[in-house]
Amino acid sequence: MAAEPVSGFGLENLPYGVVSPGGCAVRYGDSAVLLAPLEDRLGVPAGTFSGPVLNPFLELGEEAWARVRSALPGLLGDLVPLSSVEVLLPVAIGDYVDFYSSIEHATNVGRIFRPEAEPLLPNWRHLPVAYHGRTSTVVVSGTPVRRPRGQLGEGRFGPCEKLDIELELGFVTGSGRIFGFVLVNDWSARDIQAWENRPLGPFLSKSFATSISPWIVPLAALEPFRVPGPVQDPPPLPYLRVEGDWALDIDLEVALVVDGAETVISRTNARSLYWSAPQQLAHATLNLPARAGDLYASGTISGGSPGSLLELTWNGRDPIALAGGRARVFLQDGDEVIMRGRAGPVSLGEVRGTITP
Amino acid sequence: MAAEPVSGFGLENLPYGVVSPGGCAVRYGDSAVLLAPLEDRLGVPAGTFSGPVLNPFLELGEEAWARVRSALPGLLGDLVPLSSVEVLLPVAIGDYVDFYSSIEHATNVGRIFRPEAEPLLPNWRHLPVAYHGRTSTVVVSGTPVRRPRGQLGEGRFGPCEKLDIELELGFVTGSGRIFGFVLVNDWSARDIQAWENRPLGPFLSKSFATSISPWIVPLAALEPFRVPGPVQDPPPLPYLRVEGDWALDIDLEVALVVDGAETVISRTNARSLYWSAPQQLAHATLNLPARAGDLYASGTISGGSPGSLLELTWNGRDPIALAGGRARVFLQDGDEVIMRGRAGPVSLGEVRGTITP
Repeated sequence: MAAEPVSGFGLENLPYGVVSPGGCAVRYGDSAVLLAPLEDRLGVPAGTFSGPVLNPFLELGEEAWARVRSALPGLLGDLVPLSSVEVLLPVAIGDYVDFYSSIEHATNVGRIFRPEAEPLLPNWRHLPVAYHGRTSTVVVSGTPVRRPRGQLGEGRFGPCEKLDIELELGFVTGSGRIFGFVLVNDWSARDIQAWENRPLGPFLSKSFATSISPWIVPLAALEPFRVPGPVQDPPPLPYLRVEGDWALDIDLEVALVVDGAETVISRTNARSLYWSAPQQLAHATLNLPARAGDLYASGTISGGSPGSLLELTWNGRDPIALAGGRARVFLQDGDEVIMRGRAGPVSLGEVRGTITP
Repeated sequence: MAAEPVSGFGLENLPYGVVSPGGCAVRYGDSAVLLAPLEDRLGVPAGTFSGPVLNPFLELGEEAWARVRSALPGLLGDLVPLSSVEVLLPVAIGDYVDFYSSIEHATNVGRIFRPEAEPLLPNWRHLPVAYHGRTSTVVVSGTPVRRPRGQLGEGRFGPCEKLDIELELGFVTGSGRIFGFVLVNDWSARDIQAWENRPLGPFLSKSFATSISPWIVPLAALEPFRVPGPVQDPPPLPYLRVEGDWALDIDLEVALVVDGAETVISRTNARSLYWSAPQQLAHATLNLPARAGDLYASGTISGGSPGSLLELTWNGRDPIALAGGRARVFLQDGDEVIMRGRAGPVSLGEVRGTITP
């Protein structure tokens, strides 16, 4: 045991990631513990941690995950300062699914785009609505986000003028189960989306960058923060019923940094999500096995305070006042977005991204 | 040089695939020529063909593809009968994109589901509408297709009652370019689709199985069959303009086998597609590089005769008469679907699948 861990990355957490140089690692405080040299003592097959991604470990399954987690506290001697390494995308993502599981978000979107109609569509309370995203554009926190170009409406082509964020909680699967959680910023081009969206859903508006936090917090670390979720009415169909409480009491915030000044523009909690992670997984894998390394994101979390600029500014109508007297409706070049998450002593770290032209 | 090739797989074709045992291969007649032992003579880096998928070859790019193709005719001595091997999925697919590029199909769908409105949505003639599918459910021809379960409407759960096909032409990319073409059957659950579809597009209704033909016909083999496509009105935006003729004169047919009796239920041609393959690729990769191993499918091809049962039966209203006095509106367990494609002497082979309960 060595340096005192910084708050949020102590023994209760021990999230997994990949650093360079070094490879698969666990974060402890402000350091990484490399896992390849510990394979023997962790009781995993040789080679589990020798590659550039966590997928082989994810494939081992729950028993191995528990064994490694219980052995880790005794093996944290050899610490590599995070300042001396680069933190990489931790998983080779097979498929990326994005849900729409916040009732507050779906309701807001309905009110904005269909003000005359019932805000929630008829299917919303019956199934966790979702679509597939593009795996090749999932990037790790810190990767610059280039403003996408596209069709902004009939005959209009150019850089996106309504560049937005989506605050989401994601999970990564291994061998049919939830392995752990990350923060997700599902960057969105609202003008491209509005034009391309019908009838097959979002495409280019969502497939230029999706940023995730680099350290996957294992479900085991979040077990103490499982709480009752919203009452579901109507009761879900049998395949969507899960035992126990599965909302996660994770405080979330979104900060916007403009010209060096940071403003927190939204604070919410993941426990507000109507559809839980196990329900999302049960739905998505109804007709197929869950593969190790798939990424599932919750959709924008808007309980308490909304997790998108679309909602915060009511589609650009109401600018947000920022520190230093500035204001924003959508993102401008040079803006940095930081999302943070925390459950008691367990930090989900942050997911950052700066807009480039 | 050896046995006379069966029609459609002669020297004009030489499509790429993967067989077991043996690995990467080229098809010549009813035989496979294994490529790993020929790496040296084909002028590719050692290991290009030694893995279980064609991705390393796709990554090499156009010059290498041309070099290999020109060297192959002199190296076809060692033939392995296809009857002695299993033909596998030839590529590890990174992302799978499904378009909606047939104007006849989009018009039919509009007429069926929005009979009071203009059949084509306002964006359709301006961009090649598309969505991302699930890569883990792309399977090779011959893989049985299990009837999916799902929500068929409000409170209704069970096996799909409107199981359909979609006849499509797909292409696989390598290093930013189109490498070659396959036939695609994008199996679709119409009842699940109708209920889940809003507002984010198809999800479970399209992610239980997508079958592709096993032999990727290189673009080089199809060059002689590039013909003018439909006139595009309005003219496409600059990023969607491509030089030359890019419609492909490929005859296509769909056969349905019920109780051992085969009936051809649709005949069409890929040249009817409104949006061409290079336009599809230009659109999908507007803000990102094309990765080697991505799959892009055209969407249902319905010029001439429709490529889906939805259209052929007008959503179940008009049964199709089959050989032996039988009839179908949607697929029943045990039904086999065979799609075939051919451009002059170049066969795209076939994509088959049988429905299991």
